[in-house]
Amino acid sequence: MSALPLDAAIRIAAAGETAAKEIGTAMNIAIVDAGGHLLHFTRMDDAWLGSIDLALRKAKTSVLFRMPSAALGEISQPGGPVYGIEHSNGGLISFGGGMPIVDTDGRTVGAVGVSGGTADQDVHVAEAAARAY
Amino acid sequence: MSALPLDAAIRIAAAGETAAKEIGTAMNIAIVDAGGHLLHFTRMDDAWLGSIDLALRKAKTSVLFRMPSAALGEISQPGGPVYGIEHSNGGLISFGGGMPIVDTDGRTVGAVGVSGGTADQDVHVAEAAARAY
Amino acid sequence: MSALPLDAAIRIAAAGETAAKEIGTAMNIAIVDAGGHLLHFTRMDDAWLGSIDLALRKAKTSVLFRMPSAALGEISQPGGPVYGIEHSNGGLISFGGGMPIVDTDGRTVGAVGVSGGTADQDVHVAEAAARAY
Amino acid sequence: MSALPLDAAIRIAAAGETAAKEIGTAMNIAIVDAGGHLLHFTRMDDAWLGSIDLALRKAKTSVLFRMPSAALGEISQPGGPVYGIEHSNGGLISFGGGMPIVDTDGRTVGAVGVSGGTADQDVHVAEAAARAY
Repeated sequence: MSALPLDAAIRIAAAGETAAKEIGTAMNIAIVDAGGHLLHFTRMDDAWLGSIDLALRKAKTSVLFRMPSAALGEISQPGGPVYGIEHSNGGLISFGGGMPIVDTDGRTVGAVGVSGGTADQDVHVAEAAARAY
Repeated sequence: MSALPLDAAIRIAAAGETAAKEIGTAMNIAIVDAGGHLLHFTRMDDAWLGSIDLALRKAKTSVLFRMPSAALGEISQPGGPVYGIEHSNGGLISFGGGMPIVDTDGRTVGAVGVSGGTADQDVHVAEAAARAY
Repeated sequence: MSALPLDAAIRIAAAGETAAKEIGTAMNIAIVDAGGHLLHFTRMDDAWLGSIDLALRKAKTSVLFRMPSAALGEISQPGGPVYGIEHSNGGLISFGGGMPIVDTDGRTVGAVGVSGGTADQDVHVAEAAARAY
Repeated sequence: MSALPLDAAIRIAAAGETAAKEIGTAMNIAIVDAGGHLLHFTRMDDAWLGSIDLALRKAKTSVLFRMPSAALGEISQPGGPVYGIEHSNGGLISFGGGMPIVDTDGRTVGAVGVSGGTADQDVHVAEAAARAY
């Protein structure tokens, strides 16, 4: 089912954790496969409890629409073309911190969701994680 | 309950699929009866997984209020008369892509919901599908 | 994501529909991919509305555990080893009518869920459908 | 909130993974803290997708009542003293595979939930994991 093996997910999570430590923020890092199913999850010590669900939903959001969660946020504002899309799929998160994981053929094989800092920090860590694939 | 027979739903779905292929976009196409119950569903190869739920909810939204889902979106913006209506009925989608299916007497006999492209593309395909009835 | 293309799903649904007509029962037939995501759905004219959800959940159940839904039912009875498993995964259905769709390498590439008749009739139609792959 | 640091969770997960490999079964292994919040999750390659949710719920069940999930199952059968308890707390799982993680003072500091094999295999792996604390 998953084209993303566990060892790749562990490598992605480790890269995210390294980037989070560099900026001194405790993050939740979730990795899902191409079908949106959880593959790996790490909560760093002292990370916000409310960010567990955010990390999970950001990863799900990114894989379901094959785009960074922040890209969805740009078009889901009031008056935007997909305003209210967050109510679909059991609840999406459309701000930064979710990134698709894309293979060399351009296929989305999964996604990573990061939460625990500011939106900018979450995006920074998610990008570092996704690049490790 | 349904005045919409399966063979009509198949014809509607096929018209949607043809329109989707013409614009080169992989769509999810859901058709519900007058009671909002699922009658037919097609996911074209490579369509976004997140659009399955959107297509289903757009169809449901359109039949429950007998209007295009985009029409509901116009009045559910912040400050609008039905702001927040998306939280009702187990979750509605109020942007384009849902169209009621109306018989020659003007009765709504069902609805089609389309998702997979931009909102404009979804509307285009939903209109082509609904016209096939 | 899906190793099950739409044209295979349509063939599977058609085989199920043929088998349902042979026994004179109106069925709901749902087909999901390897990740449990809806790919195709058909409700035959006059089928029970309550069976829409059953067909969807039987398909989901069969793919999530790569076994016929009835096989799960055998071990989820009171006193059985997985009693209560139906409460997981957003609600499973553990009686007959769900069948995995397995490729020639033995990999589960999706599942079909059938509901509309007796459990025996549902199983008969689901098996006919799954064989068409 | 959590007295269970991430490095302990990783050690627990690794012990579970080792035990799973020894018996040749692909497992989902979830670890929650004393508040029932997810701390770490691993899905081994080829594990059942339906077992993700089961592993998460077994861990939650074990920490919420500070007992193995199987112990709850013994008293929640039809006619038993807490029949139906699975419907509480957003859905519990009351068969084997969830184990509390207990410190040297006898305090429950978290729980591990394992799913992917038979109930006996799940219990075996969960016990091996919990012992690694």
